[in-house]
Amino acid sequence: MRIEIICTGDEVLTGKIVNTNFSYMSQKLEDVGLSVHWGTTVGDDRESLLAAFQLASQRADAVIVNGGLGPTIDDLSQEIAAQAAGVDLVLNEEWLEKMETFFTKRSRIMPPNNRKQAMLPTTAEMIDNPIGTACGFALDIGRARFFFTPGVPRELRRMLEEQVIPRLLARSGAPATIYLKRFHSYGIGESHADALLNDIEELVPDGSVKLGFRAHYPQLETKLTIRGTDKDDVRRRLEPVQTAVRERLGNFILAEDDQTLEGVVLAELTRQGGTLALVETFTSGQIAARIGHLPGAEHVLRCGVTVRERTALHRALDIQGFGLAGDLSQETTEAVARAAREHAGATHALAVLIDLDDGPDRIDFGGTIWIAIATADDVSFRRSRILGGREWVRLGAVELGMDCLRRYLQGLPVVERIDFEKT
Amino acid sequence: MRIEIICTGDEVLTGKIVNTNFSYMSQKLEDVGLSVHWGTTVGDDRESLLAAFQLASQRADAVIVNGGLGPTIDDLSQEIAAQAAGVDLVLNEEWLEKMETFFTKRSRIMPPNNRKQAMLPTTAEMIDNPIGTACGFALDIGRARFFFTPGVPRELRRMLEEQVIPRLLARSGAPATIYLKRFHSYGIGESHADALLNDIEELVPDGSVKLGFRAHYPQLETKLTIRGTDKDDVRRRLEPVQTAVRERLGNFILAEDDQTLEGVVLAELTRQGGTLALVETFTSGQIAARIGHLPGAEHVLRCGVTVRERTALHRALDIQGFGLAGDLSQETTEAVARAAREHAGATHALAVLIDLDDGPDRIDFGGTIWIAIATADDVSFRRSRILGGREWVRLGAVELGMDCLRRYLQGLPVVERIDFEKT
Repeated sequence: MRIEIICTGDEVLTGKIVNTNFSYMSQKLEDVGLSVHWGTTVGDDRESLLAAFQLASQRADAVIVNGGLGPTIDDLSQEIAAQAAGVDLVLNEEWLEKMETFFTKRSRIMPPNNRKQAMLPTTAEMIDNPIGTACGFALDIGRARFFFTPGVPRELRRMLEEQVIPRLLARSGAPATIYLKRFHSYGIGESHADALLNDIEELVPDGSVKLGFRAHYPQLETKLTIRGTDKDDVRRRLEPVQTAVRERLGNFILAEDDQTLEGVVLAELTRQGGTLALVETFTSGQIAARIGHLPGAEHVLRCGVTVRERTALHRALDIQGFGLAGDLSQETTEAVARAAREHAGATHALAVLIDLDDGPDRIDFGGTIWIAIATADDVSFRRSRILGGREWVRLGAVELGMDCLRRYLQGLPVVERIDFEKT
Repeated sequence: MRIEIICTGDEVLTGKIVNTNFSYMSQKLEDVGLSVHWGTTVGDDRESLLAAFQLASQRADAVIVNGGLGPTIDDLSQEIAAQAAGVDLVLNEEWLEKMETFFTKRSRIMPPNNRKQAMLPTTAEMIDNPIGTACGFALDIGRARFFFTPGVPRELRRMLEEQVIPRLLARSGAPATIYLKRFHSYGIGESHADALLNDIEELVPDGSVKLGFRAHYPQLETKLTIRGTDKDDVRRRLEPVQTAVRERLGNFILAEDDQTLEGVVLAELTRQGGTLALVETFTSGQIAARIGHLPGAEHVLRCGVTVRERTALHRALDIQGFGLAGDLSQETTEAVARAAREHAGATHALAVLIDLDDGPDRIDFGGTIWIAIATADDVSFRRSRILGGREWVRLGAVELGMDCLRRYLQGLPVVERIDFEKT
């Protein structure tokens, strides 16, 4: 099935906003085994919209149009859809009533121009939008089925997942059930992961399991798309493949599906009744910022301290008696973690100290990262060197520090070589 | 002049990467008074590429193609460009030599498949890429001039600004000099700014000054595009308009052009020989993270402290004698800022304390933000209430805290009503 996407709106066309709706839709379709063949971006302009609809209607089997369903005069999707399909617009009483209820519930009166949002082409199938006033709809233009979706991201997401994708899957004749399993890892590059996993699709020889990757430094997402007749069938096919992925990526898997590294760390500390102290230098609050705003972190994050000159730690942690002025050492890093734990009165402390290279930023600019994790009667240490410019070092140090803590909390080795470090 | 953009590559089409190159190019063209009429996204696929080139060649005067200039087998731009123009590919000796030098300088031998990057259509004008091996080029297909650019963002940026835009401006017959002046503000919404500034284009009655906005919460960018015959002419036209913008947006302007709020705060503290202590609660390190990683911050950011429970400040700042357990007050907030300054031994301290609403996240979830700035013999206070969900409160508090510090350092009133607060 040939699918196209048309994104509409002056804000997207002029680059005022980055078109994340396109990549979102395209990824979601990939995840269920469908693929987008062509993308078009046009502004709020009658001539361009009509031309875009007509061209897509000649090439595609299905077209998703995003945007242009709002109440203002530059929202033209319904009007041009009707024109392209050669039909009239008619007031949809059901949607008008829904909108009126929507406003009444919020103790507001519906402005008159919202009425426009209930005008649909006569041949349109209404598609529900449970969280907004933009009415989705589908209709045929030429040989293609067009699906019109709202530009507001959270409304689009809900409509795409609940309404549009099931309709596309039904049209594509794909098996009824498709499942996406995701693994998040840190420390293995995409080509390395590919080499480790390239034969796992063959564990299910009928081609119903597809392997894919999405790299967003420093993490890598490994994705398995499984097609089956029903949930049980999918589970049966997934089982041997996910076991193999877990075995081969092993300790590097930091989270699965919707979990995040910071969420896993927070959950593990909460489960153990633990509290956390943080010490940061060049990462300057980035580690605290990943964890601290999460619901529940108020019971776990006791204190985060950021300094840019290590000697300021004497004062910040109210300590004396070990040197911070010279080169870093394992002893010093561990002493900082121990002092931070005591100073905050926490069960766990993570110290991430960085010796940055001198000079201006450049591609081979690096940093040496000194990490210690302290508890009442234990301390773990990890040192690493990362190159790639100031920003790369900073991002890498945040992730490495948090992942060492995750490993520690899960009883895994804190020291295990990663692909991004130089030794 | 009608301009189109064609973005190529499976990674963009499948949404594996978000297409920031498109919005970047489109914005850059808008900034010089040109505009994009149509955007197309296709994968690394011969048939789609050829169709995209042919369609654009019938509609546009100029087309920018992005991506597909690499050394691998799925990089097809040169090949399909030649096919669409009805010409052959020929080895460009000049570019081959450049690439060989490129590798030699890096003590590497050029892999044989890089040779492919020097194969250009016979009618192509070479466009220099001073920082990569992908050779840019321009040629006519149908009625349109096509410009082929690399997909690597920093190579694209350099080539677009230095090579492509001057060629487009020359073709468009626009005045020789175009200048973009930008003002960054915090606290004024886009429609409010528009109401304040909507008549300023008329200060230069010949239409050579254009006003535009780009909102990225919580900041707003106000843009003036000025066309003139030369630099002096541009400066003369800009002068009265930029004076008017500065008068009307006044204290809300936090930075101009490439400056940032955090850069301005850091520069002002550096200029005053000052050092900084920070105290954060729900923003949990975000303020420290905005400033701390900047070059030069090692001399300014003395210590940042993050806690999620205010009572933990007794321990973190080594203080006693004022209450943190009950409701916040101006006195408590000011005392925290004073204590943080003394504890860190800094000249300035910024404390941003937040009382979050209870319950689950929702659109009217809010927070009360308590801000104090302390120096040796002075303290300033600001309270605000922001609604809009947890994330909105967090972003707003980071910006408001930093902007209060900017105002304090610049001798401006710290308390001035903003559009985003409820009172």
